[in-house]
Amino acid sequence: MKIRAGYELSYESPQPTPMILQLSVHPSRIPDLLSWDRMRFDPPTPAKTYHDSFGNFCHVITAPKGRLNISTDFMVQDKGEQDVIVPQAEQHALKDLPVEVLIYLLGSRYCETDRLSNTAWSLFGHLPQGWPLVQAICDYVHDRITFGYQHANASLSAWEAYNVRRGVCRDFAHLAVAFCRCMNVPARYCSGYLGDMGTPPPYGPGDFAAWFEAYLGGRWHTFDPRNNVPRIGRILMARGRDATDVAIVTSFGPCTLAGFKVMTDEITSNAPAST
Amino acid sequence: MKIRAGYELSYESPQPTPMILQLSVHPSRIPDLLSWDRMRFDPPTPAKTYHDSFGNFCHVITAPKGRLNISTDFMVQDKGEQDVIVPQAEQHALKDLPVEVLIYLLGSRYCETDRLSNTAWSLFGHLPQGWPLVQAICDYVHDRITFGYQHANASLSAWEAYNVRRGVCRDFAHLAVAFCRCMNVPARYCSGYLGDMGTPPPYGPGDFAAWFEAYLGGRWHTFDPRNNVPRIGRILMARGRDATDVAIVTSFGPCTLAGFKVMTDEITSNAPAST
Amino acid sequence: MKIRAGYELSYESPQPTPMILQLSVHPSRIPDLLSWDRMRFDPPTPAKTYHDSFGNFCHVITAPKGRLNISTDFMVQDKGEQDVIVPQAEQHALKDLPVEVLIYLLGSRYCETDRLSNTAWSLFGHLPQGWPLVQAICDYVHDRITFGYQHANASLSAWEAYNVRRGVCRDFAHLAVAFCRCMNVPARYCSGYLGDMGTPPPYGPGDFAAWFEAYLGGRWHTFDPRNNVPRIGRILMARGRDATDVAIVTSFGPCTLAGFKVMTDEITSNAPAST
Amino acid sequence: MKIRAGYELSYESPQPTPMILQLSVHPSRIPDLLSWDRMRFDPPTPAKTYHDSFGNFCHVITAPKGRLNISTDFMVQDKGEQDVIVPQAEQHALKDLPVEVLIYLLGSRYCETDRLSNTAWSLFGHLPQGWPLVQAICDYVHDRITFGYQHANASLSAWEAYNVRRGVCRDFAHLAVAFCRCMNVPARYCSGYLGDMGTPPPYGPGDFAAWFEAYLGGRWHTFDPRNNVPRIGRILMARGRDATDVAIVTSFGPCTLAGFKVMTDEITSNAPAST
Repeated sequence: MKIRAGYELSYESPQPTPMILQLSVHPSRIPDLLSWDRMRFDPPTPAKTYHDSFGNFCHVITAPKGRLNISTDFMVQDKGEQDVIVPQAEQHALKDLPVEVLIYLLGSRYCETDRLSNTAWSLFGHLPQGWPLVQAICDYVHDRITFGYQHANASLSAWEAYNVRRGVCRDFAHLAVAFCRCMNVPARYCSGYLGDMGTPPPYGPGDFAAWFEAYLGGRWHTFDPRNNVPRIGRILMARGRDATDVAIVTSFGPCTLAGFKVMTDEITSNAPAST
Repeated sequence: MKIRAGYELSYESPQPTPMILQLSVHPSRIPDLLSWDRMRFDPPTPAKTYHDSFGNFCHVITAPKGRLNISTDFMVQDKGEQDVIVPQAEQHALKDLPVEVLIYLLGSRYCETDRLSNTAWSLFGHLPQGWPLVQAICDYVHDRITFGYQHANASLSAWEAYNVRRGVCRDFAHLAVAFCRCMNVPARYCSGYLGDMGTPPPYGPGDFAAWFEAYLGGRWHTFDPRNNVPRIGRILMARGRDATDVAIVTSFGPCTLAGFKVMTDEITSNAPAST
Repeated sequence: MKIRAGYELSYESPQPTPMILQLSVHPSRIPDLLSWDRMRFDPPTPAKTYHDSFGNFCHVITAPKGRLNISTDFMVQDKGEQDVIVPQAEQHALKDLPVEVLIYLLGSRYCETDRLSNTAWSLFGHLPQGWPLVQAICDYVHDRITFGYQHANASLSAWEAYNVRRGVCRDFAHLAVAFCRCMNVPARYCSGYLGDMGTPPPYGPGDFAAWFEAYLGGRWHTFDPRNNVPRIGRILMARGRDATDVAIVTSFGPCTLAGFKVMTDEITSNAPAST
Repeated sequence: MKIRAGYELSYESPQPTPMILQLSVHPSRIPDLLSWDRMRFDPPTPAKTYHDSFGNFCHVITAPKGRLNISTDFMVQDKGEQDVIVPQAEQHALKDLPVEVLIYLLGSRYCETDRLSNTAWSLFGHLPQGWPLVQAICDYVHDRITFGYQHANASLSAWEAYNVRRGVCRDFAHLAVAFCRCMNVPARYCSGYLGDMGTPPPYGPGDFAAWFEAYLGGRWHTFDPRNNVPRIGRILMARGRDATDVAIVTSFGPCTLAGFKVMTDEITSNAPAST
């Protein structure tokens, strides 16, 4: 299965504005790229790159005064396999977890484990640990939150999403991550591309997707409380403690998002994309 | 200058409770220890140790059902020098910062940079960058927040502290950290021992202290918006993005703090401590 | 089982000499310490501490002109269990190894995998992979090398030890490590204390011991080609690619080892040590 | 200045052979890529990617039985600036070095600091520290070693190169790195592309180049004892303790290099390359 993906973003800055960008495909997916997800800047803008402590590939730029367009368009090979379900994956005791995983048990900007702990234990404390627990959290979050792009709010936290009961995929992920951590399951936030191949058209306006990974049975597993059904075609971009660590753009000065378009399409053999 | 320090903590757990403890002196201060800050558990409790990604020394234990006392008592040599003031330390442009420092520009559980950015820029945007900016942030926070142990609230964030205008040292630190990050100055939260040697008795009940470090002129510098005067005798325990990462105890299950005492005393030559 | 351990080292330097010291008990064993392995310097010498990229605890000092004594003396609790044998621990294919383990497949100062590869494959290429392979390597090395303190040579490599057929425990470890790497088994060098509790007196003059760990079945396992029988009472100090990375002293200038004594004794209940 | 670079390698394996490849442009140069240095495998071969502890981008593959061709061909923008000379860059005392730099003071597979220390001090001990010392080392190595592709020997170490007095660029780099470390200057080995733009044709058969970096005045600086004149157009691929850590191919089983071609050409405006 081949997927064509990309984005076109525009930012308006009243003055030169430093930015951290996390807009690259995750290094683990590079072998699958059929063409490069090169980040194009219009006007041309020098960038410095680095890998952050989570292993994500980041760019630092200074957006010029005025408009900056950032775009990419690439092809990637995907196995076309659904998210794997491993019901027997067991939950580890704290002392048995790899120490580098422990940070994913702590609270974070959008996942206030301190505020949600009592709720989590009353909702999920009676359940068997491990995979059934994480799936129950996903089910609960999927039902509790009403999806709607109009609810997008970059300041909304898991605690707030729990209370207002609406949000976008990042809020679903934040609430599930927070609940998992409250229940002693390490959980980390993921961002990336996820097409609408599983749903009939007309599709939505296109956006990046958020899901999360839970650590069970000695490895990380994908969960998606927004969709809450196994999906195909996830193209990971970045992982972190929550959306803070994987923000597509972190700007250090005022700027305005003036354009935003994300594309993810399966390429069928009958209709090849131009290169 | 010799300092005698330690703590006596008691936790009541209704069932065996996993915990991460950050109750050790920071590795960088080990050469100054005159006696070991060995963590004593009563009843004896096995521990696993590790260094987290921030370089802090952590213990993982399973607190037994019932009461667990955790204590230490040690002596440390200190230069007895005040916090250093370096007014000419310059602020770095984003692109010139070491990449491992960039994470300290992002928001975190208790430092909602997204919520405080506009406030920060309107308060401090007109100031010269670098040391004067960070000092102005400390002055502002010192004045804005009223200190009181009765205001201690482990869920209070910088944004909330800004609004309710009261708190304890951690809230002072969180608000200053958040403002620094909004103004593009990397800032990290610090916890440790800090005696009351500079203030006249009667002293307070004793507690750990929180302060922060800002990255200017190629290195980290100590700032303390709670006291807002140079102090001597800081004994660092842990650093992180905020109090989440350096919590003295992160428990994974219900437990009650049943006793809490922190001691920090200068030892004078006339009144040596028994060993 | 309680072990009393320590060392007394003396160095003579014709001028102030910078040194890196790896003379501390490994952080993973700190919970077992009954008293602190504080490094004592005579004359008193300031030290800076850090954890290296292998997780070892290191000191940086400048040894003064003249003699410097470095010593410690501590007690440690040990389970008193023998090295564990896990015959079914399987060898991983390269692609299945955790990426942080791959560096332990490469050559290093004292483990010239390039020079020993053909020998390794001709000696061990016909054997079943995994634990039996590593044990066969230990058996071979144990037989090939004749032990003798008089053969100690800090420049001797695995390739040279293979050829001269004599050495001390570090040479046994280096040769086995090199063979393991040649056979695609990640292997890392370990240094620490190991008493002579398993052998009848009179004991040797006392020294630190070297052994190694091989990565099989998803974890590291202890192997000791010098003794080649399961032992009790290993107190790990440091791990690395080979002896280079865990040298007790790396000096940056000329200096002379003027005294060297290592103690490791089991403390029986009838004959407690003075504290 | 635009550079077109790439390689065509062929390996013959008598059986499926696991390999680690370090054949990608270093992450720090990705913003300069005008087209992607995609690694092409013929026959198609799955790869797993990771960043090693030195920050290099690595591929793990299992080369199929028979021939495997690995190639790339890309364009990169370069500033066209010569290696920078900073004569006033000072040498740091051991205690003032960043701790992550200290590993580059230790010996390694091809840089036997223990064997070369006395030689280093007698040759360079009288010189002023810092840049002049490192340049003197480069001058000495440049003169001591006779270059010749026929001397290429993947097992040759710095100590051996010092003695046989001949080698290729990696041997020049190894010997200079070893001398620097002996003289307390952190030094790391670099591999990459370096065209022959500075020398008149006919050019050699094409190869990757090796140079090194020394840590002076708070940062790493490029030195090239093989050429020993400032050059333009270095395209870094990987850095490490020595050639072991940056080998273009580390194979875990027998295989034969059946073809090897490296291209690096400046693209002039009059003669654009086909894409």
